[in-house]
Amino acid sequence: MANRVVWLPYGAEEAEQKLGGLPDGLTVEAWTSATELPGSVADVEFAVMPYMAGPKALERIEEMTSLQVLQLQSAGYENVVDRVPDGVTLCNGGGIHDTATAELAVALALASGRHLDRFARQQATATWDATWGVSLADQDVAIVGYGRIGKAIEARLGGFEVASVTRFARSAKSDPEVRPVEELAEHLPRMGTVFVITPLTEQTEGLFDAEMLARMADGALLVNVSRGPVVDTDALLAETSSGRLRAALDVTDPEPLPSDHPLWGVENVLISPHVGGYASSFERRRDRLVAAQVRRFAAGEPLENVVN
Amino acid sequence: MANRVVWLPYGAEEAEQKLGGLPDGLTVEAWTSATELPGSVADVEFAVMPYMAGPKALERIEEMTSLQVLQLQSAGYENVVDRVPDGVTLCNGGGIHDTATAELAVALALASGRHLDRFARQQATATWDATWGVSLADQDVAIVGYGRIGKAIEARLGGFEVASVTRFARSAKSDPEVRPVEELAEHLPRMGTVFVITPLTEQTEGLFDAEMLARMADGALLVNVSRGPVVDTDALLAETSSGRLRAALDVTDPEPLPSDHPLWGVENVLISPHVGGYASSFERRRDRLVAAQVRRFAAGEPLENVVN
Repeated sequence: MANRVVWLPYGAEEAEQKLGGLPDGLTVEAWTSATELPGSVADVEFAVMPYMAGPKALERIEEMTSLQVLQLQSAGYENVVDRVPDGVTLCNGGGIHDTATAELAVALALASGRHLDRFARQQATATWDATWGVSLADQDVAIVGYGRIGKAIEARLGGFEVASVTRFARSAKSDPEVRPVEELAEHLPRMGTVFVITPLTEQTEGLFDAEMLARMADGALLVNVSRGPVVDTDALLAETSSGRLRAALDVTDPEPLPSDHPLWGVENVLISPHVGGYASSFERRRDRLVAAQVRRFAAGEPLENVVN
Repeated sequence: MANRVVWLPYGAEEAEQKLGGLPDGLTVEAWTSATELPGSVADVEFAVMPYMAGPKALERIEEMTSLQVLQLQSAGYENVVDRVPDGVTLCNGGGIHDTATAELAVALALASGRHLDRFARQQATATWDATWGVSLADQDVAIVGYGRIGKAIEARLGGFEVASVTRFARSAKSDPEVRPVEELAEHLPRMGTVFVITPLTEQTEGLFDAEMLARMADGALLVNVSRGPVVDTDALLAETSSGRLRAALDVTDPEPLPSDHPLWGVENVLISPHVGGYASSFERRRDRLVAAQVRRFAAGEPLENVVN
């Protein structure tokens, strides 16, 4: 019997190493480009789509006539699900970004409070000039969106002596207590830092509009690691350029932020270019998920993270 | 009986608020300048020296003829202890900087790994350009110096999914296991991040010399929040400008780093201008210590943090 073809984000040798040995009966080819496909396009049965490949990588999916499983590296799958042929199982990368994204959220909060962005710019002009910082310690913190990444943010806050953590999500829950997002406005005035990691939905689009931002305390920090449109950019620009609020943003609206956008120049705003999942911890967790899925596929067992 | 005069880092009204009411029989004056003293110089019995005031503030200590207690805001007291007249009790600020310094150490590690310094500089040119980061997660971490701040760093790492924490100090201890610093070289090759928070002593001066730095793994990060001379600057410059190591430094040697020093321009080096204790969390802990000490002083009870 011919080997079954699997496309992974690396070649056979690296796959052997990362997966701790390959299941029998598989032939591995590396799929790393959004536009160039490996030669075995008609034979591939299990394929891991390149990270951040976008729709380009899907344009030739009809040629993958033996495809049974398409595994994504992203958690989102809105742009993919409708283009997957009938009979192909689509799996997302849910869970593999949590560590990297939560880590970035806390990194942004700390860097903003302790002025590491300012010091990095001072470094460019060889300037040694201290600035009094705002600690995460002693702050009341809100986490808006309490899925896996929200929980991972909370876990990271554990050692930082924050005064309190208040969780918000679409639905109220207990143990731990999660408040419905309708109660956010009422609690905002006492928050020193607000982490935003809610999914983008009709309910959350524009959640942080001028009125909501006005509820935040003077000097408070908004950290957005969810999606840009959850925050009204013009309203945030007004509140940060006046100096009243601070912001640390891994996502923006529009995104990428155009080079002539005034938000770039606001001193109280720290911007990272949507790199929430873009770190070594993602790679390791991606490899673990791929290894487990390939093993399940080879053994004929049910896959995880199936979304269609 | 006349009120006893105490000098605090704030005036009477703020003191009332911060201390939750003043003990009876005290008159508060604000001492906030390194060079200007309050008028009650011959009457002051308890004085909190301005933060970062340096030797200037001590030049007129002989005029404080009623002084009984000098309370510092710094942990270090080497420059003060010899200038304090006989009979004056000297207390340091031990403990009040731990939170802010440990927080900065972790902030520096995260910001370096996730390239927030690079993104801050890109922000100045309105450039949206992602870079793959190094997570704190999955790393073997060393903490060199395991006093209060070392422990506070470890507490902050708790939620970050680090692979391991190995502690080093002058003397070995158990529960938790602390290794003698003599074993550092042997363990360094597997460390992804090394936090340095050892006191500067004859034993630790130049601890991270060329030979020790050469033991560190390619791509590893050295975070120094202790004192500059613990690290050999020329050796660190060589290892970072070659791109082999990364560094995040709140202290340097010399300090301040001269504007023509080549370390400023090394891309793998993040420099903050000795702001370890320079944040809101310090202020709150300073206020708590001052409140407790003033109460003890007024009640005739033994003081804490006595160093002479």
